[in-house]
Amino acid sequence: MDKLSPLAPISFPAMPQINGLSFSTAATAMKYQGRDDLMLMVADEGAVFAGCFTTSKTASAPVHLSRHGIASGAARAVITNAGNANAFTGIRGEQAIIAYRDVFACALNIAPESLLIASTGVIGEVLEADFILKMKDKILGQLGHCSWRVASEAIRTTDTFAKGATTKVTISGQTIIINGIAKGSGMIAPDMATMLAYLGTDAAISQTCLQILLKRASDKSFNAITVDSDTSTSDSVYLVATGHADIPQITDPDSSEALAFFDGLLEVMTDLAHQIVRDGEGARKFVTINVTSAKHPSEAKKIALAVANSPLVKTAIAGEDANWGRIVMAVGKSGAEADRDKLQIKIGGYLVAKNGAAVEAFDERPVALHMQGQEVEISIDVGLGNGTATIWTCDLTHGYITINGDYRS
Amino acid sequence: MDKLSPLAPISFPAMPQINGLSFSTAATAMKYQGRDDLMLMVADEGAVFAGCFTTSKTASAPVHLSRHGIASGAARAVITNAGNANAFTGIRGEQAIIAYRDVFACALNIAPESLLIASTGVIGEVLEADFILKMKDKILGQLGHCSWRVASEAIRTTDTFAKGATTKVTISGQTIIINGIAKGSGMIAPDMATMLAYLGTDAAISQTCLQILLKRASDKSFNAITVDSDTSTSDSVYLVATGHADIPQITDPDSSEALAFFDGLLEVMTDLAHQIVRDGEGARKFVTINVTSAKHPSEAKKIALAVANSPLVKTAIAGEDANWGRIVMAVGKSGAEADRDKLQIKIGGYLVAKNGAAVEAFDERPVALHMQGQEVEISIDVGLGNGTATIWTCDLTHGYITINGDYRS
Repeated sequence: MDKLSPLAPISFPAMPQINGLSFSTAATAMKYQGRDDLMLMVADEGAVFAGCFTTSKTASAPVHLSRHGIASGAARAVITNAGNANAFTGIRGEQAIIAYRDVFACALNIAPESLLIASTGVIGEVLEADFILKMKDKILGQLGHCSWRVASEAIRTTDTFAKGATTKVTISGQTIIINGIAKGSGMIAPDMATMLAYLGTDAAISQTCLQILLKRASDKSFNAITVDSDTSTSDSVYLVATGHADIPQITDPDSSEALAFFDGLLEVMTDLAHQIVRDGEGARKFVTINVTSAKHPSEAKKIALAVANSPLVKTAIAGEDANWGRIVMAVGKSGAEADRDKLQIKIGGYLVAKNGAAVEAFDERPVALHMQGQEVEISIDVGLGNGTATIWTCDLTHGYITINGDYRS
Repeated sequence: MDKLSPLAPISFPAMPQINGLSFSTAATAMKYQGRDDLMLMVADEGAVFAGCFTTSKTASAPVHLSRHGIASGAARAVITNAGNANAFTGIRGEQAIIAYRDVFACALNIAPESLLIASTGVIGEVLEADFILKMKDKILGQLGHCSWRVASEAIRTTDTFAKGATTKVTISGQTIIINGIAKGSGMIAPDMATMLAYLGTDAAISQTCLQILLKRASDKSFNAITVDSDTSTSDSVYLVATGHADIPQITDPDSSEALAFFDGLLEVMTDLAHQIVRDGEGARKFVTINVTSAKHPSEAKKIALAVANSPLVKTAIAGEDANWGRIVMAVGKSGAEADRDKLQIKIGGYLVAKNGAAVEAFDERPVALHMQGQEVEISIDVGLGNGTATIWTCDLTHGYITINGDYRS
């Protein structure tokens, strides 16, 4: 079997605690042995939750429940298990969730709808609530004694490294912390896993404002990465603002305080998103696709995604070939407005095509050298308007086929 | 390197000539040595042409010219070369086309816009007109001495077998012939090739009617197959009706005569489309995706394409795993309306999931046996309406990565 991720793992950063936010983990042995696979995150009363979820039309029961908990404003805690996504498990799957959710909520002295659910792992296998229920005393007893790092380890499935990011921003003269952990999309034979992220801050932000900022930052980070164009039924991103920092509550998403917070949030989320791509199945190269001068920003994103998801572009990158012909093809199939004769394509900053043709007397050597590196940058100027977008992806290698197609052999 | 196509090649059928339609081929040595790579198809005066082309927004210059020739009603002949797509070659590529088109049109005693152009092969390399011009006397001298089979050999790029199909239909008491040849999408290192098809009949059909019938049949055949979701800049399908058969001209696309012709045309085009999938890069399995009970036919096609193009579904099929969880995921991401709890999924005719969960007490053995075969059938009942669609595809294997990513090694 190919090495899963020849891209170097990112080391976990030193991460401060956030007042008002507690973690705990435990080992259910539901699927994994000898490691924690259950993670509880609990916020103090008064904390505010935001959430973004998969756009899948076949979203899992945990996603439905969590979406409701966020929308109602009742959210106070999230319980997450790794190894079984409890997705597409019908009424029996839902019954299992209700069984452990109600018991844990009661023990935490919060309403059932205040406890959100996240599950990642095999699809289609009913989760047995007993595995989780039997860990109740242990996990509640340890609440507050777990670091972000330990929490990030418990949510891993086939991630080859734990993913964390942190930053500080100054708002109203105070230093605010923004932390995040995530797990990437990886396969658990024989089924699909998912992307989960948990973000926390001690800033004070109203729920409406927090939700707007999370959605904006998701569109530029977790919604701007793609490994294979497939969308999990369970993707969930949570953001908690505990309000423990001594700043006036932020309520206007376009105020200077909100923008300062947003910059920090986007930095943490982009960092985590990049780590997920670097841990993509079989990934050997980290690829940045920049699109400029599209008719609209949405058209720019459409073009960038078409290039990032094109199997022919992704295999060419794996083959270290500066194959701009395949890039032109992908722009053309995106459905976005494009004019062959106005396209400009750069690879690694070097202009390779313009005016509807390859650059004449073009020196291929620096471009070839760029393609041999682990960081590949493709820039496409559409020449039609002001729309820009950036998408991050990885190459398509034998490793991907091995992980996703050869697991029975 | 993996074997290109472990699916058995389809043998070329015995194919009658069609009165009023002539072929000729020649070897330019432009890229390939020791084989014909130039093909000329000429129809008698009075013949009617229809054409369907790629939806790419970066379509090649040959596609632009041919589209114009079809729309103007002037089309009388098509000249095709294999080995260089002359796509994204800017003004120099267009000048090359004009250079050989005008000389050949003059020699054929037709207007320049009556000679359509098709080119398949490397993208981004300017085609040198001299290679084609020097073959003028040879190819014109042999006009009418070539069979459909010889023509189909000359348009091959990396196809592992020549593709032909034929049928007969009875219209107004007369036997009508419908023939077709095609080349599939395959790679010519280091660039993309394309799909081309040439269809001919001796039926008498008006141009408007012929175009409508070709578009309808394309949507159910060539536009219902996918290998890797990538769209060539050069895809072209031509249909010529010579009118030599002794039947009244068909002018109404919904008349019983038109419907009889359409059935035969669709049979030939579907046969060719299936052959292209079977010759897909690295294909080891031929996969049929049937979607029923979607909200609309367009939603059914959206779901079928999402499943057919999902790398996770395609690798699962390569791994011979009846992974219905990935099918649910792909339905969910398609964007079409779906209700997890109304989905029914069959694999090889066996019900594997319904009511939002796996079928209880389900015997996996016959399904596993089906997955081990070379023909895989996935049926998805959406449970919402009357929309149906069928899409054909192949699995995603190491062979695909090798062909498209390893060509430099």
